[in-house]
Amino acid sequence: MKAFAFIAAAVALVSLSAPATAQFAKPEDAIKYRQSALTVMGTHFGRIGAMANGKVPFDAKVAADNADIVASMAKLPWAGFGKGTETGGNTKAKPEIWTEQAKFKEYSEKMVAETLKLDAAAKTGNLDALKASFSATADTCKTCHDAFRNK
Amino acid sequence: MKAFAFIAAAVALVSLSAPATAQFAKPEDAIKYRQSALTVMGTHFGRIGAMANGKVPFDAKVAADNADIVASMAKLPWAGFGKGTETGGNTKAKPEIWTEQAKFKEYSEKMVAETLKLDAAAKTGNLDALKASFSATADTCKTCHDAFRNK
Repeated sequence: MKAFAFIAAAVALVSLSAPATAQFAKPEDAIKYRQSALTVMGTHFGRIGAMANGKVPFDAKVAADNADIVASMAKLPWAGFGKGTETGGNTKAKPEIWTEQAKFKEYSEKMVAETLKLDAAAKTGNLDALKASFSATADTCKTCHDAFRNK
Repeated sequence: MKAFAFIAAAVALVSLSAPATAQFAKPEDAIKYRQSALTVMGTHFGRIGAMANGKVPFDAKVAADNADIVASMAKLPWAGFGKGTETGGNTKAKPEIWTEQAKFKEYSEKMVAETLKLDAAAKTGNLDALKASFSATADTCKTCHDAFRNK
């Protein structure tokens, strides 16, 4: 079968007897995954920011499309912060993520909640609503980065 | 304002007078973005593959959730392959992407279409349908990688 080698490679991403909580074959895979999800989210969030800050013209459709992606992506990175992924790759994660799990969870959930509000605000087509929600979402990013990410 | 520095940094992602077709400040940003989108997609696609290939137990809900993410992510990477992003970062992109644009577009659209079918197949909860669609989707990945990605 043509795709056999490809499928085999894809399957290798998941170890044979992985429990549901360990969905990555190697810590590096989890680190790359969470960084990738945050990169995609940050890119689309930045596009909303450019409109919120008047750097590019406001386009309600573009804002809504980007906010949709931001809200979807916001749910993903957290699965990549499992136990055993404290170090590896070029992670900037602080050890506090794993020693202050309740706080990390609270911050990440706050961010996810704000991206849902951002998505709703973008759908209204109202620039002032978008600006306010962009700022509130950005605050949740910054709060978490300050506590849990090395410079 | 607390988030000012963060917002400023986010806005810096987009250059001041960027046309709609040039949504990245630097070629490296576009390369990192497209690689990130493909990493997230590949991770979730791999989880479906693990079930399609019997490496982990089939769970219809998990398969559907992953297929949903795959189908959403499949639309994203292509914006990162604009003119001027031929080299930079650690890209494995072949120059043929930019000299054979029609073929690249055809292959990418085929992949996107197959991920939508995969999403539909996953929603049926039928493992055989999932297997067939996983294989068809994997074929589109491989075809494009063979033509347009360096080893």
